[in-house]
Parts: sequence; structure tokens; C-alpha cells
Amino acid sequence: MNLNITKAYQNVKTIKPLVHHITNYVTANDCANTVLAIGGRPVMADAIEEVAAMVAMASALVINLGTLKSHSLDAMLVAGKKANELNIPIILDPVGVGATPFRTRVAKKLLKELKFACIKGNASEILNLFGYDVTIKGVDALENFQYDLKSVAIDNAKTHRTVVCITGKIDIISDGIRSFEVMNGHKRLSHITGTGCMTTSIIATFIASKLGVLPACIIGISLMGIAGECANNTLGDKEGLASFKIAMMDFLSTLDPETLNQKIKLKEGD
Amino acid sequence: MNLNITKAYQNVKTIKPLVHHITNYVTANDCANTVLAIGGRPVMADAIEEVAAMVAMASALVINLGTLKSHSLDAMLVAGKKANELNIPIILDPVGVGATPFRTRVAKKLLKELKFACIKGNASEILNLFGYDVTIKGVDALENFQYDLKSVAIDNAKTHRTVVCITGKIDIISDGIRSFEVMNGHKRLSHITGTGCMTTSIIATFIASKLGVLPACIIGISLMGIAGECANNTLGDKEGLASFKIAMMDFLSTLDPETLNQKIKLKEGD
Amino acid sequence: MNLNITKAYQNVKTIKPLVHHITNYVTANDCANTVLAIGGRPVMADAIEEVAAMVAMASALVINLGTLKSHSLDAMLVAGKKANELNIPIILDPVGVGATPFRTRVAKKLLKELKFACIKGNASEILNLFGYDVTIKGVDALENFQYDLKSVAIDNAKTHRTVVCITGKIDIISDGIRSFEVMNGHKRLSHITGTGCMTTSIIATFIASKLGVLPACIIGISLMGIAGECANNTLGDKEGLASFKIAMMDFLSTLDPETLNQKIKLKEGD
Repeated sequence: MNLNITKAYQNVKTIKPLVHHITNYVTANDCANTVLAIGGRPVMADAIEEVAAMVAMASALVINLGTLKSHSLDAMLVAGKKANELNIPIILDPVGVGATPFRTRVAKKLLKELKFACIKGNASEILNLFGYDVTIKGVDALENFQYDLKSVAIDNAKTHRTVVCITGKIDIISDGIRSFEVMNGHKRLSHITGTGCMTTSIIATFIASKLGVLPACIIGISLMGIAGECANNTLGDKEGLASFKIAMMDFLSTLDPETLNQKIKLKEGD
Repeated sequence: MNLNITKAYQNVKTIKPLVHHITNYVTANDCANTVLAIGGRPVMADAIEEVAAMVAMASALVINLGTLKSHSLDAMLVAGKKANELNIPIILDPVGVGATPFRTRVAKKLLKELKFACIKGNASEILNLFGYDVTIKGVDALENFQYDLKSVAIDNAKTHRTVVCITGKIDIISDGIRSFEVMNGHKRLSHITGTGCMTTSIIATFIASKLGVLPACIIGISLMGIAGECANNTLGDKEGLASFKIAMMDFLSTLDPETLNQKIKLKEGD
Repeated sequence: MNLNITKAYQNVKTIKPLVHHITNYVTANDCANTVLAIGGRPVMADAIEEVAAMVAMASALVINLGTLKSHSLDAMLVAGKKANELNIPIILDPVGVGATPFRTRVAKKLLKELKFACIKGNASEILNLFGYDVTIKGVDALENFQYDLKSVAIDNAKTHRTVVCITGKIDIISDGIRSFEVMNGHKRLSHITGTGCMTTSIIATFIASKLGVLPACIIGISLMGIAGECANNTLGDKEGLASFKIAMMDFLSTLDPETLNQKIKLKEGD
């Protein structure tokens, strides 16, 4: 696949897309700074009275279930329907789905009522969202599922006419026709809260810049992974996690397309 | 104007003013740390059951519309009326006003019901708040308006008996009688979420310390600008945005009155 | 007391306990990163529809009153009752109690309805929670109370069958039978928002790892204090507060049990 990362970055810098987030209060600040880091403009707004008007001005909508409330569900549905009506792409991050029946029910309702350009989560979130039989503890990724995750991505991308990203040690990305594996990343990224949410915001920013959804997901996911690798290379394993986070976020704003092209570890599925 | 920055800082350190915020969840942590950085004491509280009691103990109230909800509007009105009753100064940051009809409606209602010591926003927020005919995309500053911003500041400061601050490449500050321009700042400040909110919190902290509102606005706005300049001078343009933010926030806590006096670029309007 | 800090750390790394937080939006990100820093898994969730299911999977529940709302009180009660039913320890951080009648009323209701493994606050929060006659301004610690704080801790630990921690220049910890003083810390910790909340999250993570509550409190409180001391030693007093915070959080993730053992300043009460 010709990713054309250079063009992707140029688009973001030129369009400066507005990315509307209905998201959680734990990682909202980091998500906003992440969108700014690559050249987009974030806006967080979840009052039901204004989400339709806000999303109408935006180039993408992020729906993140991190600290879900029943009234934020209403706002998600209103914003999502308006976005679908206006062909504004929606990116779903089903944080913690499977952890509680409420979260799973909400996510399934969103899946039924809205059309998503991209759905990105870890294995247990994705499996629970699509109705597979699994258990989850908390909002973390668990490994060793009894399912072939690549098939899960392909099948559900087809069924739901979306791009499915399953993040993990190896990230799987499929639009139902083609599927890819990204092998970038560093384990310390999972020791910082919000790296998953930030990745979703980056993907949304690239999608909002009129990049195809599939390359946007590949570039977004590998950018976070490479930023983590670079941060760890710069600091070494002994350095503390707060410095690691700062270094990683620095790389989000300074990594150039050429370096990304060199460092990306991408494989198209057989 | 004799700013007496030294006295302003001494007042904050002596009074350690409590600054009550009804604000957004995206930048609340940064705002709290900013107030602490210059010697104030922040408190964030927005439950309608307690805002009147909380503001009664405070030396200033910040109302920030960042992630506005309908129930936070109620809390803003309750707290604001109590503040007005007790002559506790209120500082309004009309984040994103103009972006949606809801936000504009709320801001106008606040403007009608409450008396503000200071109203600080970017050009589009201020123009929309005061009923000028403009459009805005998201929560960002737009440039090139058809209005003379200095006149806008002066006129509305007079009409609403407040100090109006219009932030931008050049910041305009007026109490309706005198007007000032601050020319400090660095473009990277606009690539970090919340620098506007933090500036408002700094202004509020100086106002809370019994400094005149006009000098408090000038010192607060120039402090943020100079912190940005110093951060960029220290790090250079190539450094990432997360390090820039840390350096900028470091300078908020370490810049001394003498340095500020030397670096401030202030012009009194003709 | 044989603290066995090495075992405490091993337990956390092995169990990777899920620590459910119902907390405030100002410091939630820092609290999550703090739990991750020592090896736990944080989850923040406060929708009443899911808190019972969430806490049932967790190894500890943190109830933090930082930005309390009336609907979060309902969620606290539902989660707390489920936690008590399942013998999952609850840690209460009564942020700002005494500042407003609402906050005090809520905290007393929680104290009446729930059984806590640990209650940790500064002197004015603890005194107000337990019905002593004091006043508080804002959410900060005040010094010079007319009460003997060690007796307050011991008496109320007994009465409420909990461990009471009163933080301050000297931290007091008692289970009603034994009492301890921790003399670690650095004054700059009070110039960063959320260091108290983070300490509570650390305590909860150790409690969740099947450590006794008393040693968990001692280790958690001294860890934060020592991280502050180390940060200040590394950087010096002149460095800005943002760098201090990063250095302090770095130490939270890198301090090893041996160093903690050497640096802890612990005294068992007479």
C-alpha cells in the first residue's frame, strides 16, 4: 500500500481539521494536545444542546466511551446522527466495553444506530463489542483469546462496512477487503494512561484530512508506536514514566514523514 | 501605567487568594497548577448545592465555558449572583462562544445576569459574545475580522462596565477609558491546549489579590506571553510541544517581577 | 513495624490490581498514571448504571470527593455498598470536606453508610469529617488546630474501625491500636495540584495487593514524600514546578524498595 505519509501530513497542516470529541475526562487534555501536535484543531463538547451544531462544523467526530454517562450516550447519538447525515466520519473508541453490561449495551446501541468510519479498540473491547464470548477485567487489553483476531477484524469490517483496528502487541487493521499488521510500539506505552485514546484522536485527525480511512488508521497507529519507540531509545528503560510520556508526546509533534516511512513496520495480511 | 509587578507578586504570595473555578474538564488540571505556580490557591467546584458557599470563601470566581453543560450554567448563575452580592470579582472566559447557538445563548445570559470584573477571549469569542456578526469554526482564534478590535474592547468595556481583553497576536485590554496592547507571546502557545484558560486563571489570581483589574489583566496576559517566549528561547523551535509546555509552565512559577518588567512589551493605545 | 516494602512491590507487580476510582476531573489523569507507575491498573467510572459491576471486578475502590456532584454521590453509595458486600476495601479521600456544608453532609453520609478500609485527608478535612469544630478555607491543609491530631486519628480509627491518615508536615497514621508518624515529604508537593489524590491512589493500589492496610498507608504516604524529596534533590529549588512534577512522578515509577527502606522516616507513636 502506498501510504504517502508526506501527503497525509501536508493535508493536516493545510486543512487544520476540526476534530470534535465526545470523550472522557481522564485523557481529554492529552487527546487535545495530540490533535494539536500533528496540526489539527480539537474541540471537546458534549452538551446535548450543542453537539449537533458542533459536529456540523467539524471534519470528524471521535466517540470515546472512557467515562461514559447515560447523558453522554444521548449526546453521542445526537452528534453521531448529525455526522452521518452530513457524511462526517465518526471514529469509535469503545473503551472498556465488556467490563460492564452497561458499557457493552451502550456500545452495541451506538453500533446499531450509527455508521462508523473506523472502530478501534483492544482485543477484548472489539470482541465484546461484536458479540463474541469473552471476559474482560477493567479497561486493559488482555492477551490470548480463543479467536483469530485477523478474521475478527476482516469479518466485522465487512459486516459493519467500517475499518476495524484491533490494537495489541501487533496491531491489526482491516477494511474487510485488505488487512494489515503494524508491528511498531513499545510496552511502556501501556504504562501511560490514554495512549489508546490519543491514538484514536490521531487517526481521527488524519481521517478528517480527507485521507482514506485505511491509510489514516495505519499512519495513526504506527505514529504512536514509533513515538513510543523513539522515546524509549532516547531515554532508556531506566527513565521514569513521566519523562517517557513527555518524550513520546514530543515525538508526536516532531516526527517527520521521512522518519515515519523508515521506521514503520507494516505487513499486508496474506 | 505603573504596573508595579513586584507589588502584584507580593500581594499574591501574602494573600494566597482562593480562586474558585467553574470550568471545563479538559484544562482544569493545568489551570489549577497555574494558580499554584504564582502563589494562589485554586478550587474547582461546580455542584449547584455548594457553589454559593464555595465562592463566598473565595477572592475571585472564574467562569470558563469550555465544556459547558446546562447544569453547569445553573451553577454559574448561582455562584455568580452570590459573588456579585459579596463584591467578589468574576472573570469570564467565553470559550468557544459563537461556535454553537447554545454556547452563545448561555454566554449572553451570563452577560445579562452577572456583572464581570473582566471578560477575556479571542476575537471571535468576544465579537460573538457582544453580538457582532461573525462566524467561528471551533474554539480557535480566527484572524482578519471586519471590526476594529480596539474599538470593540473600549466600547464594550464601557457598556458593560468591565475590563475587556481580546487575545490574539497582539492582545488588547481596555477598561473603556484606557486601552493597552500587549505584544508578548509565541505562536507555539496556540499549539498547546488550555493556554487561554490558564491565562484567565492567572488574571483571576492577580485580581483576587486586590490588584486593580486593568494591571492584573496586563500582567496576567504578558506573563503567559513571556513564559512562552522564554520557553522557546530555552528550547529552540525544534523541540517538541510537550517539552515546550513543561518549560512554559516552569517559567510561570519561576519568572520574577524584574524579568517581567524588562520583557513586557506594552503600549498604551493612542 | 516490619513493612516489607519489597514484598509490597512484588505483590502489586504480580496481582496488577484493578483500582476503581470514583473521583474528580481535575486530577484523574495524574491518579491513573500514578497507579500505573507502581504496577496497578486504574479504572475511572462513575455512571450509576455500571459502578456496581465495575467495583465487583476491582481489588479496591477509591472514593474521592474532589469535584463532587449529587449524582456522583449516588454512584459512590451504590459502588460502596457493593464493595462492602464483597469485602473489597474502600479508601476515602474527603477532599475539601468542611469547605461547604454540602461536602461535609455528603462525607458524613458516606461515613455512616459505608465501611472504609482507610480514610486519608489533611487535618481540616479529617476534623470536619469527624465532626470537630473547625473552619477551612478552600481545599488546602491548614495548620495549628486546637486538637491533638494523633488522638484524633487514634480515636476515630477505633470508632469507625478503619485506618485514619492525617497528612501534613508530619503525617499521622493509626488503626486505633498502633499509630505512626511519617516525616518524609517536601513543601513543593503542596504546590502541585493532586499530590494528595495521587497518594490516595497509591495507598489504594497497595491495599488492593493484599497488603495490610496499615503498612499500605505507611508505604503509600512515604513513597509520595520520598518522591518529592528525590525530585527536589535532583532538580534544586530553583527549578520550575512543572519539571518538579515530572521528576516526582518519574520517581514514583522508578524508586525501588531498597531506596525506600533507606529513606523512610518513620516513627511509631509513644
